[in-house]
Amino acid sequence: MAKKNGLDGYCVPFFDDGNKSKFSLASIDPSSKPFSTGSKETDRERLAEIGVLLDAQQERLHAQRVQRVLLVLQGMDTSGKDGTIRAVFHEVDPLGLRIVPFKAPTPIELAHDFLWRVHAQAPAAGELTIFNRSHYEDVLVPYVLGSLDKEERIRRYGHIRDFERMLAESGTTIVKCMLYISKDEQRERLQARIDDPTKHWKFDVSDLDARKLWNKYQVAYEEALAATSTEYAPWYVIPADSKTHRNVMVGELLLRTFESLKLEFPPAKESLKGVIVE
Amino acid sequence: MAKKNGLDGYCVPFFDDGNKSKFSLASIDPSSKPFSTGSKETDRERLAEIGVLLDAQQERLHAQRVQRVLLVLQGMDTSGKDGTIRAVFHEVDPLGLRIVPFKAPTPIELAHDFLWRVHAQAPAAGELTIFNRSHYEDVLVPYVLGSLDKEERIRRYGHIRDFERMLAESGTTIVKCMLYISKDEQRERLQARIDDPTKHWKFDVSDLDARKLWNKYQVAYEEALAATSTEYAPWYVIPADSKTHRNVMVGELLLRTFESLKLEFPPAKESLKGVIVE
Repeated sequence: MAKKNGLDGYCVPFFDDGNKSKFSLASIDPSSKPFSTGSKETDRERLAEIGVLLDAQQERLHAQRVQRVLLVLQGMDTSGKDGTIRAVFHEVDPLGLRIVPFKAPTPIELAHDFLWRVHAQAPAAGELTIFNRSHYEDVLVPYVLGSLDKEERIRRYGHIRDFERMLAESGTTIVKCMLYISKDEQRERLQARIDDPTKHWKFDVSDLDARKLWNKYQVAYEEALAATSTEYAPWYVIPADSKTHRNVMVGELLLRTFESLKLEFPPAKESLKGVIVE
Repeated sequence: MAKKNGLDGYCVPFFDDGNKSKFSLASIDPSSKPFSTGSKETDRERLAEIGVLLDAQQERLHAQRVQRVLLVLQGMDTSGKDGTIRAVFHEVDPLGLRIVPFKAPTPIELAHDFLWRVHAQAPAAGELTIFNRSHYEDVLVPYVLGSLDKEERIRRYGHIRDFERMLAESGTTIVKCMLYISKDEQRERLQARIDDPTKHWKFDVSDLDARKLWNKYQVAYEEALAATSTEYAPWYVIPADSKTHRNVMVGELLLRTFESLKLEFPPAKESLKGVIVE
């Protein structure tokens, strides 16, 4: 397993290491809580602490305006992409955070290559950008629906690796998280939305169609993660049946990623020394 | 004065009412605190309350996905545009908030009409978008620098009114705030940035050049506000020498604007009644 951030066991082995056949989602238990203290209250305190620390890190990123950070969030319906963003980035200055939701591509987007709309949303210097779904939808969905054969998938994985390497070599730190829930947990969450009429607006009947393809999606995720986890853009699998655990783990991962950048505020400007404003 | 939101005295008279010659910035005291309770502590409690209420309003906007809300923030350097966004929108779900900073136009942007880059960033259905500076920079700055004569300014004000009317008639609620500080307050804030070496990264020497043009900017603001305050896109002048007061007043204004929309969650879907997830 890759050595990174103390989250080694949850990092998908790097493609470049020739490990691609060894990765299995089944090796991870979605109901496990490796980053929990065992107490929900203490976990929430830690999450609040992480929020404040992330805000401080992000301010340095913004002040420096050199590096960029990109978090990619993927996961099945109800896996908690929205909830993670809300909980983990609650304390981060909204000025320094850009969230990009990717929906089903529009006709204009489909008229371009699949990375076209994604590249346009890449983080600028000093930005922390979160992709809420991403270019990975453009391999996962057509794979599951049967419109993307193996040859074309392999080509797309190569395009993704090349694209992400280019971003990384241009100063973007990339972290990718798959929020991993069990099929049972999804049933409970979907049922809860159905049973609460005030939550119906969050519910789309197509969610039930996607659920019927659950096993195909697991296979598709397994293949995509193994083919695109790299030193410069690693994939982490986040056990996400527990929302609190999911939030803490994503928060810890981001925080350690930021800390590894050793961001400092820019130095004082000598030219400003002793200047008096009139 | 316009009758809106209980903030009548701070709303710039509407252009359409033929009041355009009657507006004077000098009639407003930037150090006044009309929305303060008199106690900074109570003001901060109210601000926290506003934050929670705005978050609830924004969730309905998002759930409904019909209407759009646009807040335009303008003001001299150090007037607190960034600070307002951070303080007032701290509680709002980052998923439902999009902040667009407008910098000096790039060569590509300059190759288009001045509303081109602005239109591209207009809020989508369900979005609350904040313009941190805006298309108003494209009249204020060239006016002050002497590269925009009166005839062309009048033309641009007309283009702005037409553009904003179109947005409003297409479902966008527009509120525009000028954060109004005194020249003395700006001196103190700029000096504080100079005296604190850890704040130098926030300081650009061009800020001092703009300060030398203070009076010209006041005249430019006065003209622009009077020419573009309309029923469908009113301008408010926010006394902003006190940061706490500024935050509370912008918060109250936004909250009352949201409340006037009478947003409700979408109704339950009959088709989901009794559905059991398998």
